[in-house]
Amino acid sequence: ASASAVADALAHQARLTKPAGSLGALEEVAVRLAGSGGVCPPAMPAPAALAIFAADHGVHAQGVSPWPQEVTVQMVANFLAGGAVANAFAAQVGASVTVVDVGVAADLPAGPGLVVRKIGYGTADLSIGPAMSAGDAVAALEAGISVARTLIDSGARCLITGDMGIANTTASAALISAFTGLDPAEVTGRGTGIDDETHARKVAVVRRALSVNGIEPGTEPLRVLAAVGGFEHAAIAGFVLAAAEARVPVILDGVIAGAAALTAQALAPASIDHCVAGHRSAEPGHAAALRHLGLRPLVDLELRLGEGTGALLAHPLVCAAVRVMHEVATFDSAGVSEKPM
Amino acid sequence: ASASAVADALAHQARLTKPAGSLGALEEVAVRLAGSGGVCPPAMPAPAALAIFAADHGVHAQGVSPWPQEVTVQMVANFLAGGAVANAFAAQVGASVTVVDVGVAADLPAGPGLVVRKIGYGTADLSIGPAMSAGDAVAALEAGISVARTLIDSGARCLITGDMGIANTTASAALISAFTGLDPAEVTGRGTGIDDETHARKVAVVRRALSVNGIEPGTEPLRVLAAVGGFEHAAIAGFVLAAAEARVPVILDGVIAGAAALTAQALAPASIDHCVAGHRSAEPGHAAALRHLGLRPLVDLELRLGEGTGALLAHPLVCAAVRVMHEVATFDSAGVSEKPM
Repeated sequence: ASASAVADALAHQARLTKPAGSLGALEEVAVRLAGSGGVCPPAMPAPAALAIFAADHGVHAQGVSPWPQEVTVQMVANFLAGGAVANAFAAQVGASVTVVDVGVAADLPAGPGLVVRKIGYGTADLSIGPAMSAGDAVAALEAGISVARTLIDSGARCLITGDMGIANTTASAALISAFTGLDPAEVTGRGTGIDDETHARKVAVVRRALSVNGIEPGTEPLRVLAAVGGFEHAAIAGFVLAAAEARVPVILDGVIAGAAALTAQALAPASIDHCVAGHRSAEPGHAAALRHLGLRPLVDLELRLGEGTGALLAHPLVCAAVRVMHEVATFDSAGVSEKPM
Repeated sequence: ASASAVADALAHQARLTKPAGSLGALEEVAVRLAGSGGVCPPAMPAPAALAIFAADHGVHAQGVSPWPQEVTVQMVANFLAGGAVANAFAAQVGASVTVVDVGVAADLPAGPGLVVRKIGYGTADLSIGPAMSAGDAVAALEAGISVARTLIDSGARCLITGDMGIANTTASAALISAFTGLDPAEVTGRGTGIDDETHARKVAVVRRALSVNGIEPGTEPLRVLAAVGGFEHAAIAGFVLAAAEARVPVILDGVIAGAAALTAQALAPASIDHCVAGHRSAEPGHAAALRHLGLRPLVDLELRLGEGTGALLAHPLVCAAVRVMHEVATFDSAGVSEKPM
């Protein structure tokens, strides 16, 4: 981050016609983006582009989700037809929608809005061995990097993470446990809706995955990712790395993005300077990931949908935070009396 | 609220291609607006119109705010020039901005965007007697009603409350204490920024105001409003009543709107069905008001600016909640498998 842009942003905030600190968390966002972008005021984070990374998970076979695996493919079709919640929210905030097949367990018909960067037909079952090879993890990272670069080259000035993959909260919990050191029971949630028995099985699966794969504190990040991640986690980590390289902000969605961002942090800590936490989902692992990332979520409405929905909702808030830096008058320019000290 | 529209909204939510309940608080908003509007899906709450009700307060003489009273007039000029945070946020969400002088302590030059409905040159000091006469309270209510009707007649399909008035958090605390029955110490905050000594004085002023004016549990609402309210509180209460009559949703801003909505609730409880709590401000009285109103705030970012800023930030969230009801595919229509029960 640029120290001088941070200092300029703090000084500018203090001159604006509002009580000091009265915009709360939005002031931090504006200062953060000034620092990460290296310019004050920070560039308006628009237009925004949502990329939904879709993939399947071998661990689905362990009964960790009540949803059939084919819902991943069905929802990809729904995104492409414009019928999902992510489409409605993207329309609301003016974001483009790109769907990326990084590893769905079926072949998808080509069509506008679909980018095929398939690494495999779903990962292997992480509870009995590595989910993917190190080579595949790198290929998935590269897919995310490539998508980010293409969107930025096309004019996007804010990237928004999205994901779709039945059973992907299980892989997320394993990644979060590995990177934060917290016990699987603390970071494994109920995903899109499971009962107590399924939840207990899910915790046990996460625990076994870490043990079977020999994941310990300090295990090298790429090995963690390959052992217990999903193709979409790897791709989102790459997406974050490429956005950071281009100094374009990324709004992170929920627990899948949180797990992916922990991976990016482990690989390149400064990449997180470019991230804004769009929301805090109902998943316990997400709150743990955000604490470890040092990010404060902007929206906290008990969403647990994924797809990028929470991050999309945060986009107008991020824009508002930055817009203040461009458009609001100063005490001097507006002739408004300052509070006496 | 329309019971059949509520039932239709709940049934429609269950058919949409998303896990049940996965949109958290936004689902409640959509169902609530269906019920209050009497139609499912509810009408899109756009375009939105912000009305900033500005007034001064005789209690300023008690030293409850560090800001000079003339900041009210200066900020009105800033709103009209487009230089305030509320203007930047309104631009972000596409809301119009109307400034209403309901009782600023100076004459304002006429200009576009300014509606003059001045009831007086600031209220009287509520800590030594009634802030206004009952007649003036009614006149201020009527001003708010008139502004709401004009905005709705001009096409607004969502009203947003805003306020400006140095010392208006003191009157808000008195109204909130009166309507919730909570002690002044529990509901009196630090406004836009005061030290411990000023805060202690402010609590004492609120306590004295309620005592001097003989406000007790069960005091008639109009008498409470006239005794310890501000012209902008009365006007915002009228604004809420008129919006409810027209079945147009209102997004409430912070503690001033909360105090005004408690007044509207006391006068006509069903009017609150049409209200959405835009945010929860840092003022303790605001949280108390929201609990009493039964409203859950959508944005919670420690804002304490007023002007309508918190409500403006919530507008895209409310739109997103409603848009889901219009645009998202159902499991049937999209061919997505439902979760087995």
